[in-house]
Parts: sequence; C-alpha cells; structure tokens
Amino acid sequence: MIDTICALATAPGGALGIIRISGDQSLEILSHVFTKDLTKAKANTIHYGHIKDGAEIIDEVLVSVFRAPHSYTGEDSAEISCHGSRYILNKVLELLIQNGCRMAQPGEYTQRAFLNGKMDLSQAEAVADLIASGNKATHQIAISQLRGQFSSELSQLREQLLKLTSLLELELDFSDHEDLEFADRSELLMTANKINNRVTSLARSFETGQALKNGIPVAIVGRTNVGKSTLLNKLIRDDRAIVSSVHGTTRDTIEDVIDINGITFRFIDTAGIRQTTDEVEQIGITRTYAAIEKAQIILWIIDTNPSEEEIKDILERTNGKSLIIIRNKIDIISTKDTYTSAIPELVDIPTIDISAKKGINIDKLEQAIFESANIPELSEQDIIVTSARQYQSLVSAHENLARVLSGLESGLSGDLISEDLRLVLDDLANITGQGRIVPNEVLGNIFTHFCVGK
Amino acid sequence: MIDTICALATAPGGALGIIRISGDQSLEILSHVFTKDLTKAKANTIHYGHIKDGAEIIDEVLVSVFRAPHSYTGEDSAEISCHGSRYILNKVLELLIQNGCRMAQPGEYTQRAFLNGKMDLSQAEAVADLIASGNKATHQIAISQLRGQFSSELSQLREQLLKLTSLLELELDFSDHEDLEFADRSELLMTANKINNRVTSLARSFETGQALKNGIPVAIVGRTNVGKSTLLNKLIRDDRAIVSSVHGTTRDTIEDVIDINGITFRFIDTAGIRQTTDEVEQIGITRTYAAIEKAQIILWIIDTNPSEEEIKDILERTNGKSLIIIRNKIDIISTKDTYTSAIPELVDIPTIDISAKKGINIDKLEQAIFESANIPELSEQDIIVTSARQYQSLVSAHENLARVLSGLESGLSGDLISEDLRLVLDDLANITGQGRIVPNEVLGNIFTHFCVGK
Repeated sequence: MIDTICALATAPGGALGIIRISGDQSLEILSHVFTKDLTKAKANTIHYGHIKDGAEIIDEVLVSVFRAPHSYTGEDSAEISCHGSRYILNKVLELLIQNGCRMAQPGEYTQRAFLNGKMDLSQAEAVADLIASGNKATHQIAISQLRGQFSSELSQLREQLLKLTSLLELELDFSDHEDLEFADRSELLMTANKINNRVTSLARSFETGQALKNGIPVAIVGRTNVGKSTLLNKLIRDDRAIVSSVHGTTRDTIEDVIDINGITFRFIDTAGIRQTTDEVEQIGITRTYAAIEKAQIILWIIDTNPSEEEIKDILERTNGKSLIIIRNKIDIISTKDTYTSAIPELVDIPTIDISAKKGINIDKLEQAIFESANIPELSEQDIIVTSARQYQSLVSAHENLARVLSGLESGLSGDLISEDLRLVLDDLANITGQGRIVPNEVLGNIFTHFCVGK
Repeated sequence: MIDTICALATAPGGALGIIRISGDQSLEILSHVFTKDLTKAKANTIHYGHIKDGAEIIDEVLVSVFRAPHSYTGEDSAEISCHGSRYILNKVLELLIQNGCRMAQPGEYTQRAFLNGKMDLSQAEAVADLIASGNKATHQIAISQLRGQFSSELSQLREQLLKLTSLLELELDFSDHEDLEFADRSELLMTANKINNRVTSLARSFETGQALKNGIPVAIVGRTNVGKSTLLNKLIRDDRAIVSSVHGTTRDTIEDVIDINGITFRFIDTAGIRQTTDEVEQIGITRTYAAIEKAQIILWIIDTNPSEEEIKDILERTNGKSLIIIRNKIDIISTKDTYTSAIPELVDIPTIDISAKKGINIDKLEQAIFESANIPELSEQDIIVTSARQYQSLVSAHENLARVLSGLESGLSGDLISEDLRLVLDDLANITGQGRIVPNEVLGNIFTHFCVGK
C-alpha cells in the first residue's frame, strides 16, 4: 500500500493556492474534510464546497478530481484550489495529514508518474527544467524533451544496437561453424560508427545545454570611466523589469541577466583595468582577469585608441573567447578614423560604435552579442542534453562504443564485441530508465532537485 | 459587451501557476490557443491539452471550465493550470491578450462577482481579508463575513428600520388627521434604541478588528541589559520559522511578530531606558517613549528592584495601557522577596518571573500577554468590522440614529424623523452595496487593494 501524499503546488502569496493530493486514499481522506463525499466523484470533474475542521469552516474551495490511471501521477488524485492565505494553506495541509496523508517529498508526484509508467526518466527531468525555464531556448528544449523527442531518438538508437547485437549473438549460437559470419563486419562497422556519431553529437549538445540553462557568461572589460556600468545598466534596464516582475523562487538573485532572442546572457562583474600600484585596486583588476577567464564572450569597451600594451594584454587574455570591441561615446567623439580601424591586430574583430549614455546602437550590440554566442538555431526537433546524469550516460555509451568500433576493426570475436554492445545498451537505457528497476539512489538524485508539490 | 480578462492568480515561482480568464469570450479565446475546442465544453469539467502559439507548444496544461452564472465571477470563465515557469506564464498571458483578452485590474474578478450579484460589498471585502489572513482570529472574521453573517445582520437591522419608517410615513399619508399616531412613540423609541445599540457595538468592534488585522502592538521596555533582546528572541524564535516558511507577498517584512492563541502580537522596537546625558542615547530613549505611546501592551522588564523614580516614570507613561512586569533572570537571582512584591504601587500589576535566557516561564508570559490584549473570545457568529469603509458607514448610521432618537424624545414630527431614518437606511445599505448603484470611486477604493488575479 502506497502513502497518500499532499503538498502545496503553488508558491505561497497569491490570490489562489493549490494543494495537491495523490494516492489510493486521496478521495477518501479528502471526503473527511470536505462538505461532499468525493469517493464516487467522476474523473475530471470540479466540485465546490467547504474544507471543514469539525464544525469550523476553513475555506470555500474548488476540488478537481482525477482518477487513476488518467492523472499526472497515474494514481487517484485531487487538487484543492484554496484562497491563498498562509493560514488557510497550512490549516488544510494539517487537516489532510491528520486524516492520513503525509507531506510529499520534493518531486514525489513526478517520481510516482515515472514509477507508474506515465513518463520516463528523461521526461521527468524535463519537468523540472520546464518549471525552471526562463527563456524561449530553455523552454523549447524542456518541452521537446518532455514530449519524448529525446526518448524516441534513444529508442531508435537502441533498436539499431539491438539488431547489431542479435546478429553477433546469432553467430555465437553457431560457434562450432568457425567460418560462419552472419554479420557483415564492414556493415556492422558502418552502423556502429553512425550510432557513435549520433551519441557523440548528443553528448556534445550538453555544453550548449549548460550554456542555455545557466546563461552565457559575458564580461565587460575596459579602462576605468569608459562607460562599463552605463552600458551594463542600459543592457539590463528594459529586461530586468520583465524578469523581476515574474521572478520566482527558483533563482534567488536575478541580477545582471538579459535575454537576447530567447537566450540568457549573464554578466560577470568586473572592475576597471588600469595600471596601478594601489594594492586594493590591484585586487579588483585580478578579479577582472578572473572574470575574463570565466566568460565566454568579452565586451571590450574603449573610448580612445588603446595603447599597444592594452591591445596585447586583452588579446592574450581573451584568446579562444569571443571578443567584441565596443567604441563608446560616439555621441561626443568622432570615431570614424580613429580607434581600431587603424590597428592591424584589431581589424578582424567585430566592432560596434555605440553611445551607452544615449542608447545609440544598443540593438546592434545585442545582435553582435547574440551572434558571438554561436548558439545553433534550435528547432523543436533538436535535442539538447541538459542533465549531467544523461550526459554521463552518453559519455559512457561513447566510450563503450569506441571499444566496439576498435574491436570490429581489429577483428575481435563476436562474443567480446557483443559484451561491449550490451554495455552501450545499458548506458542508453539508463537515460530513460524504462523497462528497468532504477536504484533508489539514482531516483533520489533526480528528484531532490525538484520543488515540493511537483 | 464586457471585456474578457486574464491574470495570473497564483504567486509566481511554484510548481504550478494558475491563469484565470473571465468574460463572455473566455472559452472562444481560449479555444484559439488550446488544442481542443472548448466553446461547447460543459460546466465544471477539466480538459487536458496543449497551449499553442501557432505550431509551437507552450505548455501541457489542464483547463477547468466554468459556466455563467455558476462561476466565481458569474461569467463564463476558465482556469489554466500551467507549469510554474515565468516564461510559460508570461507567454500564455501574452497569447490570451493577442487573442482578445485584456489583463485584469486588481480585484477585478471579485468586482465582477459583486456586479453580477454573486456577493455583496461586505463579502467582497472579506475576500481580500481572507487572503491576507495570517492567523485563526483574522481568518475566522473573514470567513464569517464572506459567508454573509454581517450581511444578514445588516439586512435584519434594515428590516426593522423599514418597519419604523413605514409606520411613520403612514402617518404622513393621513396627515390631515392631526391626532392620529399609528406608531406608538415609546415603542418606536425602544426599537430605535435597540438598533442604535447594535450599530454602536458593531462600530466598536472595528477597534478589535484593527488590532487583530494589524497585530496588537507590544513594547518591551526596561533598563539596558535587563534582557529585552534575549526575551524578544525567545518569544519570536519558534514562531518566526512557521511564519516565514509560508510568508507571502502580502506582507513585505514579517519581523518581530508572534501568534499567541491565534492572535497576532507585533513587537515595537525600543532602546533601553537609562538616565543619560549622551545625546545619541537620548534619542533612543525618546523613541522608546514613542513606542510606549503606540503600544497597547507594555512589557516592563526588571532584574533588580526598580528605583522610585523609574516606577513613577513607567507608571505615568503606561497609564491607560496594559502593563506587565517581568522579573527576569530568576535562574540566577532569587526574586521571592524582592522586586515588586514589596512595592505598594506595583502589587496589583500582573507580574511574571522568567528567565529569558533559559526559557523559563515563557509560556506563562505568553498567556499573560494574551490576557492583557483583552480580546473577546470570538465565536463563528461574532461580527467584527475590519473595513474602515464599513466603519464609517456605521458611525454615520449611529449619528443619524442619534438624531432619530432625540427627535422621538422631543416629539418631533414624523416626517422629519422619517427623513433621518432614510439616512440610516442609506448608511447601512452602503455597507453591502446591494440593490444600489455603487459609485465607481467607491468600487475603485475597495478593489485597488486586492491583488491582481482575485
């Protein structure tokens, strides 16, 4: 017998608060505290009534009834739509617990959905990503994964692998006929190569996934007083209002983050760079170099021709990163013939003339930042891996496939190759967890990162 | 034709977010962005599907359908249960607006519920109170008012008043028969007196209502180092965790607030009192006196016999307030024969021996604080006025009734008395707003204090 669980599924503080119950006893427990008997209530119906503590009315509510297996968890369940008062929400939860529910663990509803076969593990992980998604790109990745795009790609790969494996294993059954080869080795090699390429490209997408999930780190550098803060304020100003008006509890601090074309860019604080003997200032400059180190895109602001020394310093430190030169203050300085255009080392670096103060060419700069990020254009069919767990399985699959490939190339016997193929099959199966018993530890790792109520 | 409105009804940041739509076009607009045609959907049913922006899937959602007049607003309406991502919630609202909704004003759903006769104004005000209610007392008052206790009391009073008025007005119809008095003046006087008493007691309940709504102000005073901060920390420690775990957006800062037996007490910061010539410290002490001024209950902590001067000072400044003497540090000081028991002026003042540090007798102190608040025990039938608007109408009713009473006593003619009675009827009708056109200004004042989405 499985516990019936309850939790607040919305953030506290709104006009409404939704309490979710799931488990065999949901409707029975609820009927003890609700004005109506819901044990016979039909699926997908809504019921008006009072939640009562004995004679005392706690709230006027709407209860939505869901029936197994057609519910989120796959169990009988219900949602109570209460007035969003903390007293009421606490009291209703308290009453449910007194009548036999227990508080849900983080992600426990989704965990039950997985255990009841409503979704696989990769879809379950997509649920958390979807809730955390703050822009178009992360949203699209999560929706696509939730809808099973990744799962179906994986199942196709597994099917191809199984075909390979069974051909090899068929040979073993006839192993007394030494010369018999059912599986054409060169065809096997081609298929295994194709699978490996796909697995590798999926694994590689993790980098993009991480960048999209965490925001692409950008550092603004330049000498003091070139307008770094003014530019940053200009960039984040319009966007911040939108972000903070709906920012939730998923991120504690949303600061210096902007969305450009649905991609999040995260600005790393830097101090101004200048030659100094001042010890404190030197610390700030060391931090700036550290910021450059962490950034993927560097915005280098200048308001006059940089010295040779500065050019050398910046080019060295930003080597391998995307560098954009920003010539600021074009409203007061004529930049046509000066600055970088005259400097051979900088000619090929994208350069934007702006006025941070007047807001001139900020849109061009944003476009340049976006292009520097070099994010492949995502379509709904694209699969981007965002989970470290899935990434590890893909890396492991890749390693095992590499052994398969070299085995095939060196003419290793079929039984050894098929052993490695079985490992690859395992790796891919781990991603979705379908058709296997997933260890509690793995489940724990996945679902503790969820919020309570989901 | 009335606009169809939409808004987020939950706080952002949870696992789920609920978007509410109301108005004639609700189901038609929703059907443009939902996978299913909902225009024929039955009342109180739940529908699973996708919210789509063209071909792009925004979210997998559940839509609850409500039909006029059996909905909160009395209009056709729907609630979309989305994943609680800020991107999704913004996007869904955007889509609804593109398809003909407009963003709801604060309290607009409840305002529509009033305009469509689903509740009266006093009930509408109770909705906001209910959402803001943070403890048992405020919750109970709001629930009782929402369920129409106050409304039905008012309608009884109005009925009695109408009877009085019609008797008096009947006389006017026969005004050529000068001696005719249908209404026995002494009986009228008795009835009017009874009504006035009830109106007065309702108006008086506003003070209690305010205290319960805002928390009863308590000041802790005493010389420096007697343990004021230690005691405050002890009092708020256990409770604060509960408060902050569910604190919402209705109160920005919840600090130094405790609930005792379902009543909120609000601690006002004070500095220690001592004789000083230090100017800065003097400012602190002036503030302490101001805190005493604002408080309803004063906790005076001592850890040694107070000087005559201190006694005089405290007694003078706390005159008319509830004073509790707290003898602190009983774990290290024997208090039996010293302190206040020997001081005649203090013998009658409630005195509690505690150790703030060791947590000794904190429960007794809480009980003493609770008793000092002198809150009448509330039953579910009790009506406590919490709205300033309602209070003003009651005060005005009381003033007009006073004129009725003196008119009756002085034998004023029936037509003049009945004019004043009509004013009283108006005053009471203003509270519920039923059967009358409520000016937009009044509606505005009431509903701007609501959150958006309710």
